[in-house]
Amino acid sequence: MNKKGLSILMRAKMRPNNDPSKLSPFSPTLSNGINQMMTDPPRNQRSTDDSRSNFSASGNHYERNFDIVKDSMGLAISLNKTESLDVVLDDFSQGYFSLSNENRKKLVIVLAKEYDLNRIQVRELLKQYLGLELRSGNEGELSNVDDENMFSAFYRIERNLRQALKPTYNVLFERLNNYTGGLKFLSLLRADILSFLGEENIALLRALDSCLKEKLSTWLSPAVLELHQITWDDSASLLEKIVTYEAVHPISNLLDLKRRLGVGRRCFGYFHPAIPGEPLIFIEVALLKNVAQTIQEVLLDVPPIPEHEAACALFYSISSTQPGLAGINLGKFLIKRMITLVKRDMPQISTFATLSPIPGFMQWLLSKLASQSVIAKVDNMEQPTGGSGSTFQENLLEPDEERMLLNSALETYAGKNGMEVMLNLLTSKNYEWTSSAELLSALKPPLMRLCARYLLQEKKRGKALDSVANFHLQNGAMVERLNWMADRSERGLRQSGGIMVNYVYRVECIEQYAQSYFSTGHIHASSDIRYYIMAQKEPEETTTA
Amino acid sequence: MNKKGLSILMRAKMRPNNDPSKLSPFSPTLSNGINQMMTDPPRNQRSTDDSRSNFSASGNHYERNFDIVKDSMGLAISLNKTESLDVVLDDFSQGYFSLSNENRKKLVIVLAKEYDLNRIQVRELLKQYLGLELRSGNEGELSNVDDENMFSAFYRIERNLRQALKPTYNVLFERLNNYTGGLKFLSLLRADILSFLGEENIALLRALDSCLKEKLSTWLSPAVLELHQITWDDSASLLEKIVTYEAVHPISNLLDLKRRLGVGRRCFGYFHPAIPGEPLIFIEVALLKNVAQTIQEVLLDVPPIPEHEAACALFYSISSTQPGLAGINLGKFLIKRMITLVKRDMPQISTFATLSPIPGFMQWLLSKLASQSVIAKVDNMEQPTGGSGSTFQENLLEPDEERMLLNSALETYAGKNGMEVMLNLLTSKNYEWTSSAELLSALKPPLMRLCARYLLQEKKRGKALDSVANFHLQNGAMVERLNWMADRSERGLRQSGGIMVNYVYRVECIEQYAQSYFSTGHIHASSDIRYYIMAQKEPEETTTA
Repeated sequence: MNKKGLSILMRAKMRPNNDPSKLSPFSPTLSNGINQMMTDPPRNQRSTDDSRSNFSASGNHYERNFDIVKDSMGLAISLNKTESLDVVLDDFSQGYFSLSNENRKKLVIVLAKEYDLNRIQVRELLKQYLGLELRSGNEGELSNVDDENMFSAFYRIERNLRQALKPTYNVLFERLNNYTGGLKFLSLLRADILSFLGEENIALLRALDSCLKEKLSTWLSPAVLELHQITWDDSASLLEKIVTYEAVHPISNLLDLKRRLGVGRRCFGYFHPAIPGEPLIFIEVALLKNVAQTIQEVLLDVPPIPEHEAACALFYSISSTQPGLAGINLGKFLIKRMITLVKRDMPQISTFATLSPIPGFMQWLLSKLASQSVIAKVDNMEQPTGGSGSTFQENLLEPDEERMLLNSALETYAGKNGMEVMLNLLTSKNYEWTSSAELLSALKPPLMRLCARYLLQEKKRGKALDSVANFHLQNGAMVERLNWMADRSERGLRQSGGIMVNYVYRVECIEQYAQSYFSTGHIHASSDIRYYIMAQKEPEETTTA
Repeated sequence: MNKKGLSILMRAKMRPNNDPSKLSPFSPTLSNGINQMMTDPPRNQRSTDDSRSNFSASGNHYERNFDIVKDSMGLAISLNKTESLDVVLDDFSQGYFSLSNENRKKLVIVLAKEYDLNRIQVRELLKQYLGLELRSGNEGELSNVDDENMFSAFYRIERNLRQALKPTYNVLFERLNNYTGGLKFLSLLRADILSFLGEENIALLRALDSCLKEKLSTWLSPAVLELHQITWDDSASLLEKIVTYEAVHPISNLLDLKRRLGVGRRCFGYFHPAIPGEPLIFIEVALLKNVAQTIQEVLLDVPPIPEHEAACALFYSISSTQPGLAGINLGKFLIKRMITLVKRDMPQISTFATLSPIPGFMQWLLSKLASQSVIAKVDNMEQPTGGSGSTFQENLLEPDEERMLLNSALETYAGKNGMEVMLNLLTSKNYEWTSSAELLSALKPPLMRLCARYLLQEKKRGKALDSVANFHLQNGAMVERLNWMADRSERGLRQSGGIMVNYVYRVECIEQYAQSYFSTGHIHASSDIRYYIMAQKEPEETTTA
């Protein structure tokens, strides 16, 4: 594209058109979708859910009659196999998208309730099954013919039982999966179901969701997913989706997007053949001399270094595009395959690392600080004269750290303890602490140390509490380095106090690390990171000052 | 490829290398596979099964110990999720291929028997389920909370029951499906299971097969299959597979193959992303002025007409490559998609037709003739003085036809009736009747008429008895024309007395014809074909002469 074309395109900040109704070729809401592209809501309010409900709300005057859509759903389930099924499925999916959010929810509940399994039939089969006698081959002398007859009867009723235990809505899912565009529809349908479940957690919706999730898992086999490099030569509709779905470091304009696909950069997407032109997950890579410490040097690195000088491939953003595929591990082979692809093109690359957010760190830390503050108050009331205090009480700060913090914040927070000061500073408006050199240097030691503890020691069911950490660790990475003030964006400060982490994939250790993390929960980490943890006092020894 | 290269390649008749062990990269039998390419067994003995057992027999000295392969299968099922599963699956599939046919069968029976479902657990759950009380919302006044609790309990046990009713070998199938090369392995495994079932039809193998077939059906969704044109620029390994699997009109040498991919010809394949480089099904097309009447004019049409003069796309061969996918309808959307593809490139093409074999005609006719001959003898014994005879008795020949036949074959078959003469002629050595102009003209009227009856009136469960007819009719074709002496090859004479049939796809009628065939079994046919049937006496009215 020439400069003029680019500048015209850049006059308007690029807006995602995430209108699911575009699935059907004769969508009556297409013009509505175009209008939506002209508006510019604040980026942090953007989410697939929002854009869907926007569409529903503004598309109300096109909404089809609920009962007609319900009948079309019934037809899509009950119709004989080859009778113009495509037409019916097309009609149903268009009808579904035309409905308001409220009516969609009503329809999904109809689906879950009225197309459930036939419990009377199940009971009949259960009784038949219990009537069969299970003889083990060792008891008595049975002929092969008897054995064969017994097993025949078992297999027959078991097959019928399996069939009877499948809810009728399975038929709809399977038919949609065979229909062009159906897999995408199912992914959007599940996103809706998940959002309805968020509003109202009822058993019949949970059952519907668990059935659909299982189906989607088997249809999204990694052996079917294809890894492609995405470039500036790809279609605008594909690139638009990258802009829409980039979840880690939002793409601000077309020039930004072009740089992320240009020299010194790579973008790879995982595609499913039934959802063409839209990656299910994509990953952005920067080719650098060294492992980057801040996201600013990655995003603003202009011009990039010549590619033959690069020694490190840095994965700085991984985004999934389908909220409806939540809980289905699509990334499993992605990193391994991508490393293979990069190494084939550029054998001089020796380091594969990430520069990752730590999305749960601040949430964990602030709730720790807040609960310690409550515990301290309760303990003070119970033991006004002081004493050893509650065993739940823990000073998250080292004595040195607390002293520095109290010194630097003396005037404002007189009379408070170190943890209270820290809580106040971290929750202050506009992240004021980040503009004071003194506060920054007082907060750095405890934040870095507690962040290392959060990543390496805080677990849930034996896995790292942090979702991004868990993703990379189960893929076989190790925790390499913490980077102070590595992401000064509002999101970066809110999520992790500006800290980012490098995970490193050592090609020769990927299998082994993934395996030990899976079986024992062991997290491999560099000695630098482990040093933060070793230096801290063991939590058991902590007493109140 | 230049002429010299081609001539070198053509010195040896191309041999398929159908060695399934090539799946695994370090196959010890690779050299064996190459040796196999040098041999040249009679083509009509070739089948996937044959080449597999050849491989097993000649590969015996590489066979792994049965118990080691059995353990590796057990590991592939029991291993925890991420622990080096790929390595284990690779090891198991290599081990399986190394086994002799006999040991494979033994292993498959172990799989079916020892990795079946846990019937004791199933019984436990059944009893729990029967203990639940199913209250309908109308009986009595139930609070929403009671309802919610009741459904929660139902859904939970139903989910557990569904889980418990899945045989453990499901795990192996699912893991293989996620593993590169696994889908192909499963297709080969099912081909083995089908062949073992042919030897010994036992319940546990039937249950294993039905489970695997169901899984394969859901993984081979038409939405995932991709239609590609296959050309002379494709890889030799892909083209070799076309040679191997061409089931209708064997490809005799490379020049023959090149012509089938060249000017005036098209070849399309249906590919699955997890089985790259090998179509699951492929279809050969000739671009002609008119619908061809004989296969010779298609195969030997040198040089072909310029493509812009073509008005007809003739599908003259459809072959599926995976015996392990038997019973799974892959062709469903193939014809429709291919018509779209051809029409996009060449809008001047107005007729889409086939020139198809009638694989079951002779088998049906000869057994009819033979049974009539037996019935006639029995009736003669019971009623030596003659009379109305058995109601099962039917003269398949019209009086005129019988007279002509008896006249032309007078000397050799004195004293026999028309049907006996016909049976003798059709089963004569080397199809002698095809070298006599007189016999040909005497046999043509009854064979053409009976062939029309076979195609249009002989049914099994409401569907056309002939498998190829059923395939095209369910895809929305109509029966257009019968062609006398259209395939004089040994196979053509053996299967259908040399007759071939044109099915025609009328683009605007495909949906309607498919639907009426599906729902009522109605077969659309041209008036020419229907004329044969109308002219014949109704079978009910037929009496013995």
